[in-house]
Formats: sequence, structure tokens, C-alpha cells
Amino acid sequence: MLIYDTEKKGDKPIYEYIYECIKRDIHSGSLKSGQKLPSRRQMALDNGIAEITVANAYSQLVTEGYIESREKRGYFVSSDMDVICSGGICENVPKKKICNLDSDLCEPDTGSKEHSVIKLTDASLPEETFPFDTWSKIARKVFTDDRSACIRTPEARGLLSLRQAIAGYLERARGFSADPDHIVVGPGCEYLSNTLLQLIGGSAMVAVEDPGYMCICKVYEFSGHKCLHIPIDENGLITEGLSGSNVRMIHVSPSHHFPTGCVMSAARRASLVSWANETGAWIVEDDYDSEFRFEGKPVPPIAASDPERVIYMNTFTRTLSPSLRVAYMVLPDELFDVYSKRMDFVSGTVSTSEQLTLASFISDGYYERHLNRMRNFYRKRKKAIFEEMERSGLSGYFDVEGDGSGMTFMLRGKLPFDDRRFINGIRERGLSMNSLDEYCYNTQKYSPVRYVVNFGSLSEEQFAHAAEVMCDVMRNCLCLS
Amino acid sequence: MLIYDTEKKGDKPIYEYIYECIKRDIHSGSLKSGQKLPSRRQMALDNGIAEITVANAYSQLVTEGYIESREKRGYFVSSDMDVICSGGICENVPKKKICNLDSDLCEPDTGSKEHSVIKLTDASLPEETFPFDTWSKIARKVFTDDRSACIRTPEARGLLSLRQAIAGYLERARGFSADPDHIVVGPGCEYLSNTLLQLIGGSAMVAVEDPGYMCICKVYEFSGHKCLHIPIDENGLITEGLSGSNVRMIHVSPSHHFPTGCVMSAARRASLVSWANETGAWIVEDDYDSEFRFEGKPVPPIAASDPERVIYMNTFTRTLSPSLRVAYMVLPDELFDVYSKRMDFVSGTVSTSEQLTLASFISDGYYERHLNRMRNFYRKRKKAIFEEMERSGLSGYFDVEGDGSGMTFMLRGKLPFDDRRFINGIRERGLSMNSLDEYCYNTQKYSPVRYVVNFGSLSEEQFAHAAEVMCDVMRNCLCLS
Repeated sequence: MLIYDTEKKGDKPIYEYIYECIKRDIHSGSLKSGQKLPSRRQMALDNGIAEITVANAYSQLVTEGYIESREKRGYFVSSDMDVICSGGICENVPKKKICNLDSDLCEPDTGSKEHSVIKLTDASLPEETFPFDTWSKIARKVFTDDRSACIRTPEARGLLSLRQAIAGYLERARGFSADPDHIVVGPGCEYLSNTLLQLIGGSAMVAVEDPGYMCICKVYEFSGHKCLHIPIDENGLITEGLSGSNVRMIHVSPSHHFPTGCVMSAARRASLVSWANETGAWIVEDDYDSEFRFEGKPVPPIAASDPERVIYMNTFTRTLSPSLRVAYMVLPDELFDVYSKRMDFVSGTVSTSEQLTLASFISDGYYERHLNRMRNFYRKRKKAIFEEMERSGLSGYFDVEGDGSGMTFMLRGKLPFDDRRFINGIRERGLSMNSLDEYCYNTQKYSPVRYVVNFGSLSEEQFAHAAEVMCDVMRNCLCLS
Repeated sequence: MLIYDTEKKGDKPIYEYIYECIKRDIHSGSLKSGQKLPSRRQMALDNGIAEITVANAYSQLVTEGYIESREKRGYFVSSDMDVICSGGICENVPKKKICNLDSDLCEPDTGSKEHSVIKLTDASLPEETFPFDTWSKIARKVFTDDRSACIRTPEARGLLSLRQAIAGYLERARGFSADPDHIVVGPGCEYLSNTLLQLIGGSAMVAVEDPGYMCICKVYEFSGHKCLHIPIDENGLITEGLSGSNVRMIHVSPSHHFPTGCVMSAARRASLVSWANETGAWIVEDDYDSEFRFEGKPVPPIAASDPERVIYMNTFTRTLSPSLRVAYMVLPDELFDVYSKRMDFVSGTVSTSEQLTLASFISDGYYERHLNRMRNFYRKRKKAIFEEMERSGLSGYFDVEGDGSGMTFMLRGKLPFDDRRFINGIRERGLSMNSLDEYCYNTQKYSPVRYVVNFGSLSEEQFAHAAEVMCDVMRNCLCLS
């Protein structure tokens, strides 16, 4: 039984007091590593406080690594507490966490196999790529230069200065003349896709690429829309799949398909646009990752040549940081009219100071310089990874596909091998990787098997370790028939 | 004809070059105050550039006040350019803008009647209330202390640290124990209301208060939901209006109704909760403005006593700044289960660094200190305004109603007068004010007529001027029958 005198809590909320008492007892060693704590209910009863208060205290301690919750068994003082002696007093302190929970990226832990996880599925960005110094300098300037501008409600579509900066960038970088008036800024492509569904109205049928970015399909379905999956091949979306359908809007990534990396051919683009013109349907052109094309000329967006039925969409998630929550779309005339009549009254969805900072970051030329730096960074990283494939012998088992753009490529098996045994084998060795089939809606499987590698956040050392593991496991999996 | 040599643009985008040329010509005086500019089309043809490029350049000049767009007539060099001489060169510079466009608040301009606008409809906050120094200090600390935390993708529901800070605040300030797990953070109540509609699913019928906050009804209708308007009286929502309806969700503000300021009675609350329990409907409790109760004890939220069918919703728009775009809701168990199963996969909608700053602002006690300061600030401001009503004689024509909480009160006419003549009269004198009828969905009119005054952003001098104008106009409008 753990009883704390809640009368001594002072000005603190009770949950904070309880949290501190437990933390103190762990530090002092009176609660031992691995020791079970009372259930939330019991703790609440024993101390005459609400269960929710205990839940809040426990939750904070879990977050900070002092205790851990084990499914169906309850709460325990963390088993990975190191006892250290400081200033003559022995203290338990939580070990430095190995996993970066948010980014899904973990450092390899060569000592203990069960913690050694390298995720080739991780789409986060390496910390060193964010331009912290420039960004904070601009943010400070924005906040001191014009205080009254910083606390104004942003317009529904986003601040004019940001929309102008984006239009300027699109003109320079993508050869696409967008009217700043038609740009809508929002906190992510998922939000903007939802807004589009509202602009189109009704419970319209929508379509997505198969394989593809499955999140967007979930967003559409969750809004009550039926979602058709249109197959792709090496030339992009097989547009014949749309004829005779009732699809009113399709979400595509013509410049760089996720996850195969293919580029939609000119013929397929033309056919998609004619289908949209004939049926009055809308094309959402997700231009994600187009900034990171490493080979050949940039692929121009469909919106640049056929803006009438195309909604151009892009985000700063991959180019700057997923923590910013800024994406944008360019509405064609017809949808812009609906937007101005029906949605312009709401408040903006991205904070004013962040919009001002980003606007200045783009207009002052930092964004394009940052993109150049990043292109070099990822080009080098990819080169080193491919060299490691040769060195380790991994290239004897796999060919690389879809590596012309962005931060993913695919590994296509050269020899027949047991896919399930391979995946289980590498997972047992702390490596996680998805096969292309896992991005497919249909049951038809890709043969030979292909794996998707997100390399953006992967250090060369991590890939070297991964390549070694894959080669090891592969040797046991080859179907020597 | 205006021709600029675009070959001289250097590295600049063309629109920026054109914008700078025109600005230079205005500064130098070669384009005169009031002079008409070529149409966008003509300018594009003359210079061999795209019309959209001209549009971008003009739009920037309009924003900065150098030129103005007159409906159906075209673009003109601003007529309010002052010619000043600096360093021996005569320059046109735009006059300091009188109107703060975003906040809808204008300084009175006693010189020129047509610019003299005081908006008693303005819900923005006075600039001096935002805690700039503390906020920027914390924001800087957040950005330097833990860079890797700052660039992580925020969880769909918002960062745990912010949800915990909000839960702590709700427990201390509203006596409401909310589980941080059940809190969802989003960029505004409109966004959160939309999320709720998706959680409930289908094209459920919803209901709002009549009169009420009309934006929210527009949001519901725009998402394809039929919206019923339930009348209110001095005890709040007339719950009988709900029986027999198919309403699945109702949006109410029990602690402080907008715009009448009434508080929903205990009997009505109980009846609303039983209706929800019986029909399985949901109550969205919009607790907006509850922080600014000036009289009596705080009114506890319904969610504190009956959390099962109530979604508690609140925002930092009125307490901190509408520029922040942070609101939150607390989901009851049933909706939380749907949320965790179906929506937890999306990315968060508020930037990570802003969430970290706000979390720290609340947890470190600054938020509650700020609220105390603001309560005093608005209490004093209201007292001064009421004294001015006495002094000017305005209290001879109007009684004050609904002033117990928040930043609005109502003026109720004491004597019969011609409402239309009064409103037109004050509008001609540069005063804008809405009658309560303008917040009503039904045609039934309030008698005696009531006007809604947003006093939060109104300085004492502005109100003194407004009171004088109202008294003046009223003398001509009294129906001396």
C-alpha cells in the first residue's frame, strides 16, 4: 500500500503531488526497480482521491520513463532503472530512452538484441537537416518587428504574404503560375483533402492509387466517401480503370508515385485530364517529394498545363519538417468560387506567427537554398547506401528500383527466396521493412517481391548494419530449387 | 502605357521586379496620386509577361497601400498618398493605415468622417493583452532546450505534455477531471466540430442555439448536415424544442450564451442531459468565455457532472490570442473509442513548437496568472464603459443586459424608437453595431430591440465617442408618439 499525505500538497494539483511523491520514492530507492505499483483504483481508494488523478500521475511517470505499464498486469517501477550514486546518495534514474517514439527511429543497440531496431519504414527527417538557426532568427524577428501582425486572426485561406511567397516559389521551381488568391493553406494534406470533399459536396465517390499512400484513403472513407483503388504500372495510374466509374475526385502523385517512385507518363497524364474534362471529375495532384528529384529534369506538374480540373497539393512536411503542420493547395476557378462563397468566413488553421515566419523564410530565399542543400545531402546519403549495398554483397540479392526522386527506393529480389522467412528473419534481428504488397489494396502480389526502403532518416552506419543483417538472413532463405 | 525592361530583373521573379518598378515610380512621383494604372491584361500585353504576374505585383502593391483597386474601374495609385520630402527628394509614401484590417478594429478618425469607423461588433483582443515577453521567452527556451522534440510530428490528438497541461488546468479552474488521453487538440472549434461529425458518422441532424454563434451552423451545414435551430430564453436553451426531433448532436454554450450572455439553468441542464441519455444524442458544450466571469461563482460545466454524453470544448482564442489557432475537446468514452480506432493514425494539426510553448505556458502557471490579469483588465474596462454610459446620458436610452461574463453585453432600448433609423444613423456616423435579431435564425424579432456590444477591444476613448454618437442619433429617432 502506498499512502501519501495529500494535505501536504500545498498549491499543487493533487496529481502532481502524487507524481512527485512516487518519483521521490523511486529516486530514494524505497520503490525498487521492477516493483509493482498499486492499481489506479486501489491507489485512489487508499489515498481518498479520484482514480483519474492517479491516472494522470501514472501517465506522467510513464512518459518520463520512471514506471512502465504492462498490458493486463498493471504498473511497475521501470526495470531498466540504473542505480547511480551521486553526492553520496544512491538514486534510481531512468536509462536514456533508446527509441525516439515520435519519429519511429531507433538507434541500433549492439549490446541487447531486443532493443536493436532499425526501421527502414521510417519517413521522418534527420534532426540535423532542420535549419534551426535561420528559422529561429526569422521567428524572433517576426515576433519583435510587428507585434500587432503576430496576434491577428489569420484569414481562412492563410496569410496573403505566405500565399504570395508560395506562388512565387511555385512559379520559380515548378513553372506553375498560381494565383495567390486561389491558394489555401492548412495544417496538413489530410485536412486539405477533407476541405476538398466539402467543396465538392455530397458523398461523392473518390479514387486513389493502388499501391499507394493508404492514409489518404482512410481519410476519405472516414468522411463517409466510397474509395475506389485504381491500379498503377510502371507508367503510373492505369487510367482505363476510371472509365465507367462514378469517381468524382482522384488523388494521384504523378511526379513521384508513393511508394514505387514511378513517374506518370505523358500519355497517361493526357488521358487522365481528358477523363476529368469529360466527366467533370477533379484530379488532386499530390506533388509531395517532387523537390527531391535526383536524376534528369524536374517533372512539371499537371496543374501547370491543365489547371481547370486539377487541384495542386503540396506540403512542407518532407522539405522542412513534419512538426510544422503546413500544407497548401491551389484551387481551380470553379472550386475557388465555391470556397470564397462558402468557406471564407472561418478562421485560418495555421498560427499567424508560424505563417509569417514561413512566408519570410521563402521570400528571403532561404527555402530554395535549404532545398539545394537537402538535395545534396540526400544524394550523398543515397550514394553511400548504394556503395554499402555493393560492399556488403546485398546487391547480389536485390536490384534497386524507383530511386530517381524522393526519400524512398525499392529493393527487388533477383533470386527466388522465401519472402516470409526473410521478413521474419530480419525482424527477429531488429530490422523492420515493408514489402510493396503491404501498400496494395488488392490481394494480387508483386513478383518478384519488392521491399520499400525509406532512407531519409537512415544514417550510413545504420544502413551498413541493416545490409549485413539482410545478407545474413538471405543466405538462409534462398530457395535453392 | 507603362513599360519596364524585364531583362533588367536580374535574379528576381518578374512579379517582384514589376512591383518594385511601380513602387519606385510612385516614390519618385512619376506615377501620381490618383492616377489610373493600366489594366492587368494591358500591362501584361505591353510588357510581354503573363497576366498572373501582373496580378501578383498589383496585389502586393494593394496590400502595402501603394495602389488601390476600385470595383469595376481598375487600379489607381492610392489617393491618400502624402508627398513628403526626405533627403532632398520628394517622395510619395502611403499614409499610415487607419484600419487594422484583420481585427476589424479601426481607430476613430475625427478628421475625416468616412474613415471614422468604430466597430462594436469586433471580437478581437487588444494588442496590449498578449503576454509577448513571457511567450517569446518560453518559445525560445523550447527551441533551444530540446531541438529533437521540436521537429517531431505531433500526435493526432496533440502532444501529451499539452494534453496533460490542459487536464491540469481544467481540474483546477473548472473542477472537471478530464483524462489527458481523451483530449483532442485542433486548430479551432470549427475543425474540432467537423471531427466530431466524422466520429458520429452518417449525415446526422444537428442543432444549434437560436439566437447563437452562426458560424458553427454554417460549418455543420457545409459538411452536409441538416441544422435545427432551437430557441433560447433567459434560462438558456428551451429543451422542449428537441423532443421528437432526430437531432444526434447539439452545440450549446451553457456557461455563457453567445450573444445574450445568459446562463443555462440547472433544470434546463438536467433536462438536456436526460434528453441526450434517452435518445443517445451528443451535447457539445462550448465553454468559450467561461474564464471571464465577473459576477458570482464560476458556473461549472455540464461535462464535470455528466461526462457520458457531453463533449467539452474550449479554445485559447479569447483567453490568449485568435492568432494561435489552438482549441481542444474532451471526448466521452464512447467517442474516444471511435477516435482511437479510426483517427489516431493522422498527423496532428497544431505545430509541435507551438504546442510545446503553450504546454509550458500553462504548466508553469503563466496561463492562470494571465487570466487573472485579464479578468481585472476587462472588469476595469467594463466599469469605465458603464461610467461613460451614465456620463454621456446613454443610460437614459438603454439598459445593460447579459454583462455577467465574457466580452460582450447587450443594450436594451428603454423607450420606443425607430430601430432602422437609429442603425442607419449611427452607421452614417461611422459606428457599426449589430442588433440581437441579426444573430437569430427565425424571423421573430426581439422587442424591445437589443444591441450586442463587443467591448473587449474597445478603448475607453472609443466607447466615449461611440456613446456620444449614439446619444446624438437617438435624439432624432425617439418615436415621440
